[in-house]
Amino acid sequence: MANSPSGDSMVHRLVRVIEAFDGEHRTLSAAELARRAGLPTSTAYRLVEELLAESLLDRDGRRLRLGTRLWELVSRGSKVLGLREAALPFMEDVQSVVGHHTVLGILDQNEVLYIERIGSNSSTINITKVAGRLPVHATSTGLVLMAFGPADVQETFLRRRLPRYTDTTTTDPDELRRRLAEVRQMGFCVMTGAIVPESTGVAVPVFNAEGTAIAGLSVVIPRAGGPLQTSISALQTAARGISRALGWDGTLRDAIRRSL
Amino acid sequence: MANSPSGDSMVHRLVRVIEAFDGEHRTLSAAELARRAGLPTSTAYRLVEELLAESLLDRDGRRLRLGTRLWELVSRGSKVLGLREAALPFMEDVQSVVGHHTVLGILDQNEVLYIERIGSNSSTINITKVAGRLPVHATSTGLVLMAFGPADVQETFLRRRLPRYTDTTTTDPDELRRRLAEVRQMGFCVMTGAIVPESTGVAVPVFNAEGTAIAGLSVVIPRAGGPLQTSISALQTAARGISRALGWDGTLRDAIRRSL
Repeated sequence: MANSPSGDSMVHRLVRVIEAFDGEHRTLSAAELARRAGLPTSTAYRLVEELLAESLLDRDGRRLRLGTRLWELVSRGSKVLGLREAALPFMEDVQSVVGHHTVLGILDQNEVLYIERIGSNSSTINITKVAGRLPVHATSTGLVLMAFGPADVQETFLRRRLPRYTDTTTTDPDELRRRLAEVRQMGFCVMTGAIVPESTGVAVPVFNAEGTAIAGLSVVIPRAGGPLQTSISALQTAARGISRALGWDGTLRDAIRRSL
Repeated sequence: MANSPSGDSMVHRLVRVIEAFDGEHRTLSAAELARRAGLPTSTAYRLVEELLAESLLDRDGRRLRLGTRLWELVSRGSKVLGLREAALPFMEDVQSVVGHHTVLGILDQNEVLYIERIGSNSSTINITKVAGRLPVHATSTGLVLMAFGPADVQETFLRRRLPRYTDTTTTDPDELRRRLAEVRQMGFCVMTGAIVPESTGVAVPVFNAEGTAIAGLSVVIPRAGGPLQTSISALQTAARGISRALGWDGTLRDAIRRSL
């Protein structure tokens, strides 16, 4: 539908326009937008006019930004909002008890996508960002989601070549397989310094009403002397609360029984 | 660009597809999507295939939902995320001190658009929703944003015919003008029962580094016996914190001096 001479679909061009904006580029001039989106200037300018007319882009003086209406439409209908609204009160509880950043992540396209983060700026070094991504094998959230995920997803994951970030990043498939089994048995994952040497991530799975592990709830604590046992208890308690808010009836299904 | 025989642009059709999803319709079959978007089935099906290919829609069994990737792209580049990230820690502070729902709203297309809400489900009746809208004249957030907004926006607002929701909704332009002046002088707005009879909203403006009132921070407390004075102090303190997080250097500009 509506392909350009280069074969690009209109939808693909639109994605490139949206992708041109990010945390470091929240406003762009039309020329910058065309360049970052890799579109001919005339194409970009026409598309910008259409997007402005539909409030998918907003004008900010002479610069452009993603439209507030676009955020609204996407947020309103997205499963992400439902999950983070269910989780946020419980994340506040964890943050009060543990006193460090509390983070919620989901598995998306073979990576951990963080959908919520709360905590003071004085907490431990924490490189997670809302709408930011980190690799599965180097995060406690990633390993928890993998451990409680479908077997075929695990097998695909274990066949991939994985980069090493620090001395403690596990990349060996056999060792990762052992770690996943351990996480399933314990019901939580503790990962120390796999991306940032100074930090330890602690994560538990969050199950929905159907018993699927849909998210990982985690805290990022200091590597040395962090409140490990407190974190595990607080996270497990909060994860049950989130599941209940998502419609879980309190019956322990197999997957949940293994983890709680 | 790429208009259909009916004259609809591709971008407009895409907006209708995204709009078809909301909090009550987070998943749709392709046929439901075509119907809700008001598109011919064949057009809708082709568009769905393209959107799936770009991960702007996700498949959930036989149903469709807005793509997690769409949420990610839009959140990453949106000014909304920057504002709510700056505000969230201070909103938690207000919620701890006041003990009721704490809400952040912005003015968008003549309405208040709520971009964040925290608080326990046991708090006072509160009809605000994240990515939901309420009318300016019937919310404390709306009046605060109007009172500290540009004069021409105020004049346009005061010329509009406004609906009455309860006995206490102010709709008379002269009375609204007096209320706006009062809000500017006091630096906060208290609105009782203007939409829901049992609730009182209390709001203060949040200024950015340039001294523009970019958001309203509010709590929703019970109409009878709610912690009014505590709310005002907590909100004013938190609003200054958010401004500082947004780059305000602590110098009191005119607009800020009037309100703090």
